[in-house]
Amino acid sequence: MSKKEISKAVINRLPRYYRYLGDLLEKDVVRISSKELSEKMKVTASQIRQDLNNFGGFGQQGYGYNVEYLHSEIGKILGLDRKYKVIIIGAGNLGQALANYTDFARRGFQIVAIFDIDPKIIGTKIRDIEVQPLEQMEEYIKDNDIDIAALTVPKTSAPLLAADLVSWGIKGIWNFAPTDLHLPSDVTVENVHLAESLMKLSYRLSVKENLKKKEG
Amino acid sequence: MSKKEISKAVINRLPRYYRYLGDLLEKDVVRISSKELSEKMKVTASQIRQDLNNFGGFGQQGYGYNVEYLHSEIGKILGLDRKYKVIIIGAGNLGQALANYTDFARRGFQIVAIFDIDPKIIGTKIRDIEVQPLEQMEEYIKDNDIDIAALTVPKTSAPLLAADLVSWGIKGIWNFAPTDLHLPSDVTVENVHLAESLMKLSYRLSVKENLKKKEG
Repeated sequence: MSKKEISKAVINRLPRYYRYLGDLLEKDVVRISSKELSEKMKVTASQIRQDLNNFGGFGQQGYGYNVEYLHSEIGKILGLDRKYKVIIIGAGNLGQALANYTDFARRGFQIVAIFDIDPKIIGTKIRDIEVQPLEQMEEYIKDNDIDIAALTVPKTSAPLLAADLVSWGIKGIWNFAPTDLHLPSDVTVENVHLAESLMKLSYRLSVKENLKKKEG
Repeated sequence: MSKKEISKAVINRLPRYYRYLGDLLEKDVVRISSKELSEKMKVTASQIRQDLNNFGGFGQQGYGYNVEYLHSEIGKILGLDRKYKVIIIGAGNLGQALANYTDFARRGFQIVAIFDIDPKIIGTKIRDIEVQPLEQMEEYIKDNDIDIAALTVPKTSAPLLAADLVSWGIKGIWNFAPTDLHLPSDVTVENVHLAESLMKLSYRLSVKENLKKKEG
């Protein structure tokens, strides 16, 4: 199974397949045709077949997909067949929201530590995890083999913090700060830019409004 | 200025241009060449020229872009030249995080109300906004001409809630629930699926790890 030539568009769709298959599993669905899956997901059946063929297929013509098998195989492709140790930097509302998502742990992302600079927050607990001062982070990371750091800090502190994290061995950064991080190529950065998501919403709203005005 | 044929990829890049130009404005930069902008943004200068040509150009060859003008024009394209009334449904950590982003208000997205079903949260205040019971939402929406509803509720309640919102006149939904909402075509849904973002991160981490194993 070669992962090298998979297009970004396919990769972007895989987590959605994984989510839908997970929902089907929860409902004890054993088998599903690409037609049924297509109706649920609002993508064409041929798109689904094409996407999954990238990874060897998983289905037999006319027989459909085994939900549990497909779910587990896509999980492996997504790297979900192992555990990830995650720390959260910034224990504000967003950091707390991430720490409280039990879904992440279920998928193998274990939140093991939370750091902040605010003395009022340091020492408080979020789901049994005590918020530690930022000064202890370097030692903690070096001692604990951390895979991913979620960065929920202001944009002004994010770039320097990220550079520190990388120098301490972190290879994955989940960045919520509204700034781009330029890091070495062996580091993976996944950005969640909330303001940009909101602007895409306002763009599409205003396009629809303008169309409506034109139509009368 | 026709917005109809603009590709999704260009639209996805516009908020990023807007953010970079906003940062330059804050630093009192008056003018920037596509080359400088390209170095900052890590995209090619020809990509930038091509993207902006979709909207009529904004720049003169060899003379660069007027930062303030370009920022304001892209803002108009993104629909940021008007105000949006936003309500938040679900006053958990994520809803509170959204309510606390002062950046949104600065860009014209005014959080005007927050709703929840939890009696312990109802009546409390988040940035001077009192959390209201869900039962008051219908009347509030009908009386207050709301543009956008941010949905930070569990995936089980999101689809029905969204259908209600649409029937009460909401045209824009910013959906944080880990489920897809299938709504009429005159409604705009922008999804923020955090778990999927995390899976994209683990995918890329595991691809890099596998490559390293092969090479090493």
